Amino acid sequence: MNDVFLKACRGEKVEYTPVWLMRQAGRYLPEYQAVRGNVDFLTLCKTPELAAKVTLQPVDILGVDAAILFSDILIAVEAMGMNLEFSDKKGPVLSEPIRTKSAVARLTVPDTEDSMPFVLETIKILRKELKVPLIGFSGAPFTLATYMIEGGSSKNFLHTKKMMFQNRGLFDYLMKKLTKTVISYLSAQIVAGAQAVQLFDSWAGVLAPSDYKESALPYVKKAVTAIRKEHPETPIIYFVNDCAGILKDAKKSGADVIGIDWRVDMSEAVKKLGKKVVIQGNLDPCALFLPKEMIDDRVIDILDKAKAAKGHIFNLGHGILPETPVENAIAMVEAVHKYSRS
Amino acid sequence: MNDVFLKACRGEKVEYTPVWLMRQAGRYLPEYQAVRGNVDFLTLCKTPELAAKVTLQPVDILGVDAAILFSDILIAVEAMGMNLEFSDKKGPVLSEPIRTKSAVARLTVPDTEDSMPFVLETIKILRKELKVPLIGFSGAPFTLATYMIEGGSSKNFLHTKKMMFQNRGLFDYLMKKLTKTVISYLSAQIVAGAQAVQLFDSWAGVLAPSDYKESALPYVKKAVTAIRKEHPETPIIYFVNDCAGILKDAKKSGADVIGIDWRVDMSEAVKKLGKKVVIQGNLDPCALFLPKEMIDDRVIDILDKAKAAKGHIFNLGHGILPETPVENAIAMVEAVHKYSRS
Repeated sequence: MNDVFLKACRGEKVEYTPVWLMRQAGRYLPEYQAVRGNVDFLTLCKTPELAAKVTLQPVDILGVDAAILFSDILIAVEAMGMNLEFSDKKGPVLSEPIRTKSAVARLTVPDTEDSMPFVLETIKILRKELKVPLIGFSGAPFTLATYMIEGGSSKNFLHTKKMMFQNRGLFDYLMKKLTKTVISYLSAQIVAGAQAVQLFDSWAGVLAPSDYKESALPYVKKAVTAIRKEHPETPIIYFVNDCAGILKDAKKSGADVIGIDWRVDMSEAVKKLGKKVVIQGNLDPCALFLPKEMIDDRVIDILDKAKAAKGHIFNLGHGILPETPVENAIAMVEAVHKYSRS
Repeated sequence: MNDVFLKACRGEKVEYTPVWLMRQAGRYLPEYQAVRGNVDFLTLCKTPELAAKVTLQPVDILGVDAAILFSDILIAVEAMGMNLEFSDKKGPVLSEPIRTKSAVARLTVPDTEDSMPFVLETIKILRKELKVPLIGFSGAPFTLATYMIEGGSSKNFLHTKKMMFQNRGLFDYLMKKLTKTVISYLSAQIVAGAQAVQLFDSWAGVLAPSDYKESALPYVKKAVTAIRKEHPETPIIYFVNDCAGILKDAKKSGADVIGIDWRVDMSEAVKKLGKKVVIQGNLDPCALFLPKEMIDDRVIDILDKAKAAKGHIFNLGHGILPETPVENAIAMVEAVHKYSRS
């Protein structure tokens, strides 16, 4: 069992810097495409044998130090009672956006065993197969709220901010339900076998810092505290996208590891996050289109700068892009392992 | 003549904080809709009487301290030889994206008098009518390059970064041509009567800080230096969107004023930009959907924090949204004037 990733999460000394990639089970891999060619995306998420299969693929192909459950952050939103579809053009579509008190009232805090048994089943299969730790995950409350309120992706997040600004009670009501869901969902994943969990706050970065602090962070904090209380041994990673302006606050989430995007220099991130938190990140996913020797340079730069942190887990600053050459992803993983040893 | 805005640009003492809004001539105004209802967007940009008319509308309606020429950053791209269309659904479309050396070679550095006479004509009409200073503008070289290389808007800017990473010579060739265009275009606007100019770097924030420093900033610097040399009296504003991670570098552009988006707290921005530069910004455009008394609170907060800077011009952190209630925009302008006097 390769436990370098878990050690790094806890800030323990490691022989080399562990690495995994957000969306490492994904479309850039021909092996994934072969599986996905026969089933639609949601069926793939909900069929434990297939979800486990694609989760395993990058572990061997890339040589990464952790696996992440193949699923989608909106699976839990569907389980709360919304109608979810994935369109190739528009991405996720939630056909009846949440805008009223009665709509929030109708949402349930799902029991994972009952509503998402396939997730727990996938985790159990994976734990038998994996030689590296398994990361479970969930969307963070604010990010899930944006999808529910907007009805999918958004450009300006106007509906979300309008609710936040004009109907604070309703917004809080929704966020509380979401926070309960996140806590129970991640706890169930841990009980089933997930060895670390990551909260994805993909859209927290669209908030002004004061709004982030007031309307997103408190719910993350609550989730982190509750999960830690139930599962004190399980590392919690909090990924915040477009985080440069809110890093000091993100630290207050209490997560063991803060994941950062590529728009902030690693030196500055270390300075803002301080010595008490492990950092995960932060190569620009587009940098995997560089010639290999230049990928090396970027890896070395990030490794060097992250030395000043409590600990470092190498990752991209966002999900790997479908167009990425697999050999470059492999080269990146090798570079991380090679240069962090010396 | 109200010259508070120009004084503030120069860091001189002012009686109150001047304010204008990015996209203040736009769809949120029924008066704009009435004009736009009869002509398509590009025709509106290219008809001096109409462009002047919509430029003037918000000056009276909102009571702002500056007007900004009604136009589009892609007008200059079209003049360089690309085919530009605006689709209601997809936004701007440049049908033949620039990806090869021959495509860059075919682009011209346009003479503004010959290729965009309507812009100069609009400026001349406006200077006769306006009682506040007129701001001319251009896209910054990197932002213009993204549209040209992607063929429009983009999610990941992969084509742009691929060219930057894989074909540096070609990227630089394009950026040099763009920089020359920006310099000559803004100089022509100043000669025609623009009293300040703003460079919009709407997409600089998608770059990792090291890439921004190497691939976007040097061209902005070059443009700022050249324009200042020809027109030492004309203030230059450099707006950088999603700037939290690159603010310290953006200062090196040499611009008189740095415009910032809403994702960075004004206190932090002042700390990073120091005492030698005037700051413009940075209310979240969505905050105009707050109840009016809460808009006041946000205005006061930004005004207070910006006091530590060399000077401050109040603005939104991005363009005003089409859905914005006009009375809230007016309330914001009034709040800026009221609270900055005391």
